[in-house]
Amino acid sequence: MGKKAVVLLSGGLDSATCLAAAKADGFEVYAMSFDYGQRHRSELEAARRVAASFGVREHRIFDLNLRQWGGSALTEDIDVPREEAQGIPVTYVPARNLVFLSLAAAWAETLGCCDIYIGVNSVDYSNYPDCRSEFISAFTQAVDLGTKAADEDWKWNIHTPLQNLSKADIIRLGVSLGVDYSKTISCYQADDDGRSCGECASCRLRKDGFAAAGIADPTRYI
Amino acid sequence: MGKKAVVLLSGGLDSATCLAAAKADGFEVYAMSFDYGQRHRSELEAARRVAASFGVREHRIFDLNLRQWGGSALTEDIDVPREEAQGIPVTYVPARNLVFLSLAAAWAETLGCCDIYIGVNSVDYSNYPDCRSEFISAFTQAVDLGTKAADEDWKWNIHTPLQNLSKADIIRLGVSLGVDYSKTISCYQADDDGRSCGECASCRLRKDGFAAAGIADPTRYI
Repeated sequence: MGKKAVVLLSGGLDSATCLAAAKADGFEVYAMSFDYGQRHRSELEAARRVAASFGVREHRIFDLNLRQWGGSALTEDIDVPREEAQGIPVTYVPARNLVFLSLAAAWAETLGCCDIYIGVNSVDYSNYPDCRSEFISAFTQAVDLGTKAADEDWKWNIHTPLQNLSKADIIRLGVSLGVDYSKTISCYQADDDGRSCGECASCRLRKDGFAAAGIADPTRYI
Repeated sequence: MGKKAVVLLSGGLDSATCLAAAKADGFEVYAMSFDYGQRHRSELEAARRVAASFGVREHRIFDLNLRQWGGSALTEDIDVPREEAQGIPVTYVPARNLVFLSLAAAWAETLGCCDIYIGVNSVDYSNYPDCRSEFISAFTQAVDLGTKAADEDWKWNIHTPLQNLSKADIIRLGVSLGVDYSKTISCYQADDDGRSCGECASCRLRKDGFAAAGIADPTRYI
């Protein structure tokens, strides 16, 4: 049995690449997704397809109704904007990565592993505070002090292999690692058949990434 | 409308005192409890009684099935010990306070508040890493960097009014603030009528606290 890692898997392009990176690093992967009342439910179907295609050891979809406290265009009936404005986007979900990483740490500690992969990125998502490396460093410090690591001879590793990559670089990395991006969904408002709108900020970032990477875009559009 | 605070409320003696401290500090209280598959379900009933008795603005019991990853005598079929051994106790739930504080921060951010109360304590629970002040400081740093606080002109306050108090001091504080401890439950294995075993480590700590405080113990024992 190899060394284990928990990989946060949304079903989008970034997290699929992140999962591939964890496999390439030699980890036995425990994939973790969240049903948090997101509007783009087809993401969870995509997460299942990606997990299956990489033969993960286990894939858990954790039920977590963040919709009950709303506060984001991803969980409330706020229009998803076509263009992101300056500052923190309306698609920001309060403390999302903090919650996801905390639950990943809880599962990881039970599995006896101390490696977590998360597909945060500072290039395209610099306006989300919980995607920045300063947050990841501070979280690592908190989890080192708030779990058994505090009293035992080990430390947590929060892996962020996409932190400094452009979307095109992420796509090139993923293709080199065998990611089939037709299985992933990035769209904020994909339809029930898993087809993307092609127009939201997330779709356009993805489209531009494939174009910049010089790789054919396998996304199915409405 | 006064200033708001989210208070983590388990239904035990400490968190009830913590809630009273938040009220005494002038906060409008949003109490937050978790149904995480704990064996001592009567705690949640106690949380409801305590929240009602203090007239909190809202009390949410958040469904969070930590039992699925087990790893603790509180959520698995491991015997709860009568005496705590050296080191981290078997009643430790992996990353519990990290998960609870993260979800409290998510709710608080949606409510537009930046104050959270948690009844951690370093005197009686020094073997739980996630009850120590070093962890609380590191968590505060993480949440300051991982939420809108990072880009706006405010900071999080994680209040730990019990941090350095003995059990007797906590009881004296609570009584001075009007806590009715007969509504609270500390027992790891209380029965369905909310009566305590009187023998587990948590019961004995509580009993000793009342004795040391010179206050009659209102706990109902089996």
